[in-house]
Amino acid sequence: MPKEEFKVTPWEVSGEIDYDKLISKFGVEALDSRILSRLKKQTGVLHYFFDRKIFFAHKYFDVILNDIEKGGKFYLYTGRAPSGPVHLGHLVPWIFTKWLQDKFGATLLFQIPDEEKFFFQQNLTLEETKKWAYENILDIIAIGFDPKKTKIFLDTEYAGHMYKHAAMIAKRVTFSTAKALFGFDNSNNLGEIFYTCMQSVPAFLPTFFEKKPTHCLIPCAVDQDVHFRLTRDIAPSIGFPKPATILCRFLPGLTEGGKMSSSVENTAIFTHDSPEQVRNKIMKFAFSGGRDTIAEHRKKGGVPEIDVSYQYLNYFLEDSQKLKQIYQDYKSGKLLTGELKEITIDVINKFLKKHQVAKEKAKSQVERFMMRD
Amino acid sequence: MPKEEFKVTPWEVSGEIDYDKLISKFGVEALDSRILSRLKKQTGVLHYFFDRKIFFAHKYFDVILNDIEKGGKFYLYTGRAPSGPVHLGHLVPWIFTKWLQDKFGATLLFQIPDEEKFFFQQNLTLEETKKWAYENILDIIAIGFDPKKTKIFLDTEYAGHMYKHAAMIAKRVTFSTAKALFGFDNSNNLGEIFYTCMQSVPAFLPTFFEKKPTHCLIPCAVDQDVHFRLTRDIAPSIGFPKPATILCRFLPGLTEGGKMSSSVENTAIFTHDSPEQVRNKIMKFAFSGGRDTIAEHRKKGGVPEIDVSYQYLNYFLEDSQKLKQIYQDYKSGKLLTGELKEITIDVINKFLKKHQVAKEKAKSQVERFMMRD
Repeated sequence: MPKEEFKVTPWEVSGEIDYDKLISKFGVEALDSRILSRLKKQTGVLHYFFDRKIFFAHKYFDVILNDIEKGGKFYLYTGRAPSGPVHLGHLVPWIFTKWLQDKFGATLLFQIPDEEKFFFQQNLTLEETKKWAYENILDIIAIGFDPKKTKIFLDTEYAGHMYKHAAMIAKRVTFSTAKALFGFDNSNNLGEIFYTCMQSVPAFLPTFFEKKPTHCLIPCAVDQDVHFRLTRDIAPSIGFPKPATILCRFLPGLTEGGKMSSSVENTAIFTHDSPEQVRNKIMKFAFSGGRDTIAEHRKKGGVPEIDVSYQYLNYFLEDSQKLKQIYQDYKSGKLLTGELKEITIDVINKFLKKHQVAKEKAKSQVERFMMRD
Repeated sequence: MPKEEFKVTPWEVSGEIDYDKLISKFGVEALDSRILSRLKKQTGVLHYFFDRKIFFAHKYFDVILNDIEKGGKFYLYTGRAPSGPVHLGHLVPWIFTKWLQDKFGATLLFQIPDEEKFFFQQNLTLEETKKWAYENILDIIAIGFDPKKTKIFLDTEYAGHMYKHAAMIAKRVTFSTAKALFGFDNSNNLGEIFYTCMQSVPAFLPTFFEKKPTHCLIPCAVDQDVHFRLTRDIAPSIGFPKPATILCRFLPGLTEGGKMSSSVENTAIFTHDSPEQVRNKIMKFAFSGGRDTIAEHRKKGGVPEIDVSYQYLNYFLEDSQKLKQIYQDYKSGKLLTGELKEITIDVINKFLKKHQVAKEKAKSQVERFMMRD
């Protein structure tokens, strides 16, 4: 698929994504040095996700910064639509959200829209999505969010507080608008069509509760911005501040440059994978930027930019000096693909070992985080 | 407007309605003597609404009767979408529902979809519909429903229990189907499009609660049947029995043959109207089937079929012998329009006096009826 034909919607990501084009297509802004230096003034250090362009764009994050600089507060909102196990790609915005929570002491609303994938996937039941919801919540808690400042809720359980606000939004969105934003047609079901209203609600909830405008910052993958574009369009008409988004790229799948996805075979490393499974997946499937022969590799060097193992290090190896060294060694041909893969396997497995221990501990923590009524 | 062009949707009723045509258009059945005699075997007497063709059609009421004849149970479901004060026309299905509850000791779910009119009327707020909801509930309770067997709920308050079931329905209805049933187009808002799913929910709720199929009978005005046609289409796919409807005509408005409506000026008698207001409205606006002069009236007689005062007696004068006499006297010219109006004013005012006393008493009863979580 040529670069022009890539597709990024909340329900489909395909083709080779041109993130610069997405910025102009979605009407968002690049996270430039000016805004990052303003952030750094507040946080002391910046998360390595910025340097590595993993978080690369935003909308109205400058407004949040204006507020912060005046001593104001904001809250965080992100989410997870359950339909299967959590993979490494899902963790990226959550890790970043935790960083923001730590730096600003911000309250976090964590939405689990357990009806979303039910609407969009023919054979999925609400019982299944709910089962996955509670399984996935363990992964969320394992990230280390502050239980005193984090509220997790399922749409089907918390709807008593959400539906009336979703109705406020629904009244202000025509089918015409939803068609243009999401590409709906006559064959979409009424759940798919209405769902975006439920995703808008947490972008306003504290304002409803506290009866005063409260700024919302939503860290998420770039495909979700379309929902909040709709939210932002409506916000002024209900007298609420427009939610800000801060947007990340997709972690690549093992075999291709697209998006790590549970539904595409051999592209995902799950948080429940054993060290052996991680080793096998990376060794067998991780697309390599290395050369065909060792001799050629030593001579021409590898291409880290297209090498999936290297990309995973870009996301999960915190030590930037070490990463730089690996980049140089791989590019020069000093480091072979097999060696690069060993490093990646080691980094991922260390990360997952810690995560799996935290996930086990999370089992006794669930009720501290849940908001049901 | 010629008879062919009448329109009956849940949101618009216009033209001179041909109820026989509606029966075939909506795919429902006439309430014929065979089904009524089966009902009479159960109830001893029949409500006068049957004789007078006020309740005139049904869908699957025969299935409810099959159940009853085998000693089975059913529950009742009806509703009221609040946006203003209750008028006489609203009371007709409620009066009939109370009769069924009394005769069969049936549980009644009374839905107050306080979001419906909010979606469909530009300037209405959710605060206003909720205010009207609680005002209208007094009228509902005044009808005399059994507080032990009647549960009243607002959609925005009870959504915690409804949304997940609405989602089950929403997944199974395409926009294409909703367009065909309700006449939606691109300009409809997402609330209008989704709303029918919420109206379907009470047709299944006890089945969800009790985890066994429970038959539902919905007494309502004929314009509401379209929602339940959708519900019936979906029921088998979620393993639930199809809800039955038993359908009534519209009480005519004062000035015309259509439907009594709060939004059309001078057509409605409200339950809060004083005896003087009722007198003025009927005297001034009630369309007369009488002749232009007394002499002509005495000679040719009046036309009760088109006389709105007479129609009101048809709905509210219980004494069928007396009604028959009035019909004959009016048709023969013995009874003048002014005299007929006096009788009607007297019947309506007696009815409203009793209703207003019951409504006042209802103020202390609300919590006995409400179901919130």
